[in-house]
Amino acid sequence: MNIVEILEKIKEQKPLIHHITNWVTIYDCANIVRAIGALPVMAHAKEEVEQMTSIANALVLNIGTLTVDLIESMVLAGKKANKKNIPVILDSVGVGATDLRTNKAKEILEEVKVSILKGNSSEIGTLAGVESETKGVEAMSVKGNLIEIAEKLANNRKLTVVITGEEDIISNGEDVYICKNGHWMMSKIVGTGCMATSVIGAFAAVERNYTLASSAALSCFGIAGELAAEKSKSIGTYKVNFFDEIFNLDKVSIEKMQKIEKIK
Amino acid sequence: MNIVEILEKIKEQKPLIHHITNWVTIYDCANIVRAIGALPVMAHAKEEVEQMTSIANALVLNIGTLTVDLIESMVLAGKKANKKNIPVILDSVGVGATDLRTNKAKEILEEVKVSILKGNSSEIGTLAGVESETKGVEAMSVKGNLIEIAEKLANNRKLTVVITGEEDIISNGEDVYICKNGHWMMSKIVGTGCMATSVIGAFAAVERNYTLASSAALSCFGIAGELAAEKSKSIGTYKVNFFDEIFNLDKVSIEKMQKIEKIK
Amino acid sequence: MNIVEILEKIKEQKPLIHHITNWVTIYDCANIVRAIGALPVMAHAKEEVEQMTSIANALVLNIGTLTVDLIESMVLAGKKANKKNIPVILDSVGVGATDLRTNKAKEILEEVKVSILKGNSSEIGTLAGVESETKGVEAMSVKGNLIEIAEKLANNRKLTVVITGEEDIISNGEDVYICKNGHWMMSKIVGTGCMATSVIGAFAAVERNYTLASSAALSCFGIAGELAAEKSKSIGTYKVNFFDEIFNLDKVSIEKMQKIEKIK
Repeated sequence: MNIVEILEKIKEQKPLIHHITNWVTIYDCANIVRAIGALPVMAHAKEEVEQMTSIANALVLNIGTLTVDLIESMVLAGKKANKKNIPVILDSVGVGATDLRTNKAKEILEEVKVSILKGNSSEIGTLAGVESETKGVEAMSVKGNLIEIAEKLANNRKLTVVITGEEDIISNGEDVYICKNGHWMMSKIVGTGCMATSVIGAFAAVERNYTLASSAALSCFGIAGELAAEKSKSIGTYKVNFFDEIFNLDKVSIEKMQKIEKIK
Repeated sequence: MNIVEILEKIKEQKPLIHHITNWVTIYDCANIVRAIGALPVMAHAKEEVEQMTSIANALVLNIGTLTVDLIESMVLAGKKANKKNIPVILDSVGVGATDLRTNKAKEILEEVKVSILKGNSSEIGTLAGVESETKGVEAMSVKGNLIEIAEKLANNRKLTVVITGEEDIISNGEDVYICKNGHWMMSKIVGTGCMATSVIGAFAAVERNYTLASSAALSCFGIAGELAAEKSKSIGTYKVNFFDEIFNLDKVSIEKMQKIEKIK
Repeated sequence: MNIVEILEKIKEQKPLIHHITNWVTIYDCANIVRAIGALPVMAHAKEEVEQMTSIANALVLNIGTLTVDLIESMVLAGKKANKKNIPVILDSVGVGATDLRTNKAKEILEEVKVSILKGNSSEIGTLAGVESETKGVEAMSVKGNLIEIAEKLANNRKLTVVITGEEDIISNGEDVYICKNGHWMMSKIVGTGCMATSVIGAFAAVERNYTLASSAALSCFGIAGELAAEKSKSIGTYKVNFFDEIFNLDKVSIEKMQKIEKIK
């Protein structure tokens, strides 16, 4: 896999990443997309989401502060993205914590052909139908082998599944990648998961092998996280340094530090 | 009062703090809760707030960018919190500036058993029925003695009242604490008040003496603010250092620096 | 033009800047207003916007994440601002990208007497009726001379037009100012445009010559951007330093660095 080539494509093509996302990390999501070299746009009014998607190169849906109205906009935009054949990335934030989240995530998966479904272990576990516990937006527990859960769900839903955690699992039901980049400090700041999804959106906009795109995105994201940690004594500084590193990410660091393994 | 013990309890138990809050500081509120060692979750859809509250350990309500709809969600969540007997913390942002804010804050206080009511002097003054002026979300003037206002309102409403300012006043109508920690730079950045409320939420989740919990929270918050000031030449750096300090806050600093006085 | 005098007036009078803005940069907008010495308030509920505007000194409208509902609140607040004779500043974020944005910006311009209309080249181009392309919230292309477009639109609409870009153009249809302050790093972080509008709001609140106020605001904003760049190696640090500089901005830097030219 040539991660550097995908990253260079982003910086060259500056794909437009349309987000319908949550109000907590909406700024971070926009900022990280721009930092990686793509263009973010946030638009959620029913009256404009289809038109905005029609000029976009990828659609990122994130249910972190969902409402019934917002989900309607997501479905409208998602259907437009499907017609245009651009990737749709769904971040299933908080699935399992409330029925609304679980049901609405499933509704999106029924109504829209999602390309990449991302979540932590208990969010994906819940969508895969295995016993799981989500505490707010945190994974508490999942019954079963995560790799098998990812593979099975990917096969059933015919999409790429991304389970984030200490090690990220990426599978399209056939191939399985493990990404070991990242740093524990990333889990101490809010927004890491949402930003990772937005970065996956940027990579998927220029690389149609979505398993590859997701793995490459998470590796770059994690490398920036590792580089930032070297310079940071606590979380405030860490967040700042993380943005510094993601913006400055270069070939040398990526080639030296990337830890993606194809295990299947 | 053993502040350190309460802080350690938070880090151990990682209570879930459900927020229905404003769109300005929602990210800061989530981040500060995580920085102090608890888990934040932001959820405001009517269809899910009760279920989210039912797995939470405290509920933080903040009317900074209220709408009529959002208040309905707050009341639903608040009633659930009352049934579950978890603390409800209300930040009365902007009360006095518009009738909507004043009336809706009162409506919440009527419908929900609020545990801790927090505001600046003119917000609390307005709710206590004394002549006050709020300019947007800033306290301009209040007629009367703040300590007496806090005590009286606490007695009338049967809750803990927190008036923030250069010196914070905390009273349950019987005991009165004054917290003198903090730094003037805190008033130069947006979000300080909202974050303080979220931190109070984390402390109240593990310490049921709410006057104690609020005082301890404000002291920790203020100490981090003092430590950050030593290293900052302006507000951008200050905000970053503040998050560094709150995450790294330790026993030594707290015991040396805490300035809480029980005056009654 | 005495920029320093206007800035000092802001710090002295602390005008209240009422925003109805977008969910992406709402925190940045509030924070920059406070950093420059004014007071921000964000309030969008139909039931309170008129009352909030009635105690404000300027009204900033930003359609970055508009909904039909939000536009109704903007029109209500705008009409109140007109009655009170306080300046209304409109940031036409994303006009040209979707019909909703274009039509709603025009609707505001019809219903409300806007004092200052700001946008990038393609947003203003679209409102001026010349062939333009907006990609999300980015200017792609405009047919025609930007200075002439600004002048003509200013004359037709009887307001001050601000076109931001590498060089900012400010015109009331008669006078034309060019502001050359700024740094390319400002275009690499999200929120720069929105924050510039909020700062214009603070300047317009105390200086009724809106062409002057806008030029002075953009110059100060740009100078802070230049000062921050000297100390920053990447965008994370840059944003932090930018807030440091805008808070610390002084007479010496402004007088030495300001690059405003009156070309007409």
